Amino acid sequence: MTKIPHRFYLSEEEMPKQWYNLRADMKEQPAPMLNPATLKPATLEDITPVFCTELAKQEMDSTTPYFDIPEEVQEMYKMYRPSPLVRAYSLERALDTPAKIYYKFEGNNTSGSHKLNSAIAQAYYAKEQGLTSLTTETGAGQWGTALSEACSYFGIPLTVYMVKVSYEQKPFRKAVMQTFDGNVIPSPSATTEVGRKILAENPNTTGSLGCAISEAVETAVNTPGCKYVLGSVLNQVLLHQSIIGLETAKAMEILGEYPDIVIGCAGGGSNLGGLIAPFMRDKILGKANPRIIAVEPASCPSLTRGKYAYDFCDTGKITPMAKMYTLGSGFIPSANHAGGLRYHGMSPILSKLYHDGYMEAVSVEQTRVFEAAVFFAKKETILPAPESAHAIRAAMDEALKCKETGEAKTIVFGLTGTGYFDMTAYSAYLEGKMTDYIPSDEELQKGFDSLPKIPGIQ
Amino acid sequence: MTKIPHRFYLSEEEMPKQWYNLRADMKEQPAPMLNPATLKPATLEDITPVFCTELAKQEMDSTTPYFDIPEEVQEMYKMYRPSPLVRAYSLERALDTPAKIYYKFEGNNTSGSHKLNSAIAQAYYAKEQGLTSLTTETGAGQWGTALSEACSYFGIPLTVYMVKVSYEQKPFRKAVMQTFDGNVIPSPSATTEVGRKILAENPNTTGSLGCAISEAVETAVNTPGCKYVLGSVLNQVLLHQSIIGLETAKAMEILGEYPDIVIGCAGGGSNLGGLIAPFMRDKILGKANPRIIAVEPASCPSLTRGKYAYDFCDTGKITPMAKMYTLGSGFIPSANHAGGLRYHGMSPILSKLYHDGYMEAVSVEQTRVFEAAVFFAKKETILPAPESAHAIRAAMDEALKCKETGEAKTIVFGLTGTGYFDMTAYSAYLEGKMTDYIPSDEELQKGFDSLPKIPGIQ
Repeated sequence: MTKIPHRFYLSEEEMPKQWYNLRADMKEQPAPMLNPATLKPATLEDITPVFCTELAKQEMDSTTPYFDIPEEVQEMYKMYRPSPLVRAYSLERALDTPAKIYYKFEGNNTSGSHKLNSAIAQAYYAKEQGLTSLTTETGAGQWGTALSEACSYFGIPLTVYMVKVSYEQKPFRKAVMQTFDGNVIPSPSATTEVGRKILAENPNTTGSLGCAISEAVETAVNTPGCKYVLGSVLNQVLLHQSIIGLETAKAMEILGEYPDIVIGCAGGGSNLGGLIAPFMRDKILGKANPRIIAVEPASCPSLTRGKYAYDFCDTGKITPMAKMYTLGSGFIPSANHAGGLRYHGMSPILSKLYHDGYMEAVSVEQTRVFEAAVFFAKKETILPAPESAHAIRAAMDEALKCKETGEAKTIVFGLTGTGYFDMTAYSAYLEGKMTDYIPSDEELQKGFDSLPKIPGIQ
Repeated sequence: MTKIPHRFYLSEEEMPKQWYNLRADMKEQPAPMLNPATLKPATLEDITPVFCTELAKQEMDSTTPYFDIPEEVQEMYKMYRPSPLVRAYSLERALDTPAKIYYKFEGNNTSGSHKLNSAIAQAYYAKEQGLTSLTTETGAGQWGTALSEACSYFGIPLTVYMVKVSYEQKPFRKAVMQTFDGNVIPSPSATTEVGRKILAENPNTTGSLGCAISEAVETAVNTPGCKYVLGSVLNQVLLHQSIIGLETAKAMEILGEYPDIVIGCAGGGSNLGGLIAPFMRDKILGKANPRIIAVEPASCPSLTRGKYAYDFCDTGKITPMAKMYTLGSGFIPSANHAGGLRYHGMSPILSKLYHDGYMEAVSVEQTRVFEAAVFFAKKETILPAPESAHAIRAAMDEALKCKETGEAKTIVFGLTGTGYFDMTAYSAYLEGKMTDYIPSDEELQKGFDSLPKIPGIQ
């Protein structure tokens, strides 16, 4: 038998030509988004003022299973894809586990993460529609970098509202976006009504992702030829990110493998939803029964401790409401939380699947996450993003369970990106200055108090 | 005809199992190193106090054409290799050139550069010999990062003398090395005699690579079980880096291509020497006649404006003397120089080949280098290291010449690494604050004045 290679790449011909829309195979659909003005299910017309038309259609389409990937998008994908499916031989040896560990590594591009997969699609459709500018928000900076790259490639001006604390602490991230012509504005800012309001109430705020979303949406709505794009949570994003899972499934098929366990980190759900898509399809259709595990930070535990309820996607409460696992749009994770994944909600698709028992969720504390990150880096020679390290932690824990039971399970996890711009957090961990934070029930209750009250619904 | 893919990867089976020693095919050998005490050619015995035994043998061996790559080294290579040979379709379109542009991208590993190829070999041989620690120096940090990774993997403690200005300006580079257990010391330091001497003479010095080399060598010689390792200039390093060229040649053969022009950036010569090895062999043996171009910064122009003379490899003048193109070990590049490649000398092998007319050299100013870097990033979605961007600049210039002449030449260049830790320089360029520096003849003369006077030789 030929040994499985350390890094397996599909050929260009083997790369997926279509994205997969998991909703088409779900037995029950996620609850519809609600228009906050009418409290009725949002229509295509409701969301087209915010999103570009083709993306709005993808957002609402729960029946078409496959969408052709446009030629121009495929062309840009080929500049950094296929991403490798890596067999973690060195990690397996170090853990002395009978488990076979694979990871799909999405960090080998300048944005440093999987975010580029959806950024390219969104920039392309905007260009096709003749839009003249785009807005978005970014927290840690991965999404903003990815979208700057994509917009630069397709020639569309981009404004990025960057959470102020990141803007100040990550000047190099900002510089990368600027290299790709991104116009980066610290949020909250005086450029929007919602930003001015937040600054007036709390002049020293360091910002939040929800607030940056509000500013980006407001600017898009008020600027002719401009639309808003978002890198996570949305159905369209999970659709584009399905390329991760489709490549993984194809590569495993060629290698004669199938996962017993699929593990992904979960913030808004963009990576997790993309990675698991074909495996979840098999599970829904009864063709296979892999365990599927979402890993989230203990400091921002939307799946494991949140409520399944309608909520706004942004702090400013101007987006449609989505039914999802949420900590409340008023929840702000502790400032000591370094590991990304700090969004208050979770993709409605993933929320529904979790609610219906198709998926497990675990939460992990950040010192355990960085312990896994450093261990992994030394063994596999890749310095992971803190977000990705949540999945590493869970994969290592499962592999260690296999060591106890002697089971040779096949584990696949998503390594979403690299940590070159997160060295402040690494240093804090190495110097023993990193602490863990688990919100108390009382603190969570404050977030839940911000959930909208919807007569007759919740 | 099948279209050539954007990124071509060899399979694991197709990866080279041997390094290639270009010296074995050179018609005339580089001049031997000289023992500075005796002024006689250095012997194996002379250099074994500094280098580990197997590496010392490789350093002195000018007749063995191929060296087997040890299994353990191959195993670690497979964790990030083969590196892709990329067809720059997007760059070609943007330049509107008939030229076919390829680049061998060595940045897809955590060290961010090709340096890992030799770091792994050197750490492995040290481990095999039972050494208990290693020392080295690093300037921009790529080599120190690569060696930290390799030493961490093989379990050997490492001390890195990091040029003080980089230590202070690149805290994240330092943090990456520390993540891989590297003990990073700013140079000059009080831990060595040469460091204390330099500090006494010039307490405010920001350090230099030559000084950091001196400190690392001194510590290695004075510590039992400890040896010194170096990431460039040496024959052994070019041997290990031949993996770059061997993979490139193999990939091009499979694709049915052969380069008309091979271009590499040149600091000490580690990437250039590795990339060109098989093509230079063909040229020496009369099998092909590609143009081979070394690209160096105008601010540190060892090939284009240096002297071919015996010189010390370090500022402290404690290493053997090598005959090479050099600006003199006393030459210190201007502080405004951001683009790496700031070593005063050049690999003796490459110096000899250049002297004998097998290779061309060009120097480029740094604003033109960064102009190329930003242009390339937007078109090819890779943010290049400033060092690599020297090769990009020259490749773009050659492709633009093809546009004028209408020739469809095949150009291959080495993209040695990524620029994530060089964003300060990128920002300076984007903000219009970057200036160029070309040393005057008088300034160069000061460097030449530091060259050793060797009775009967020079």
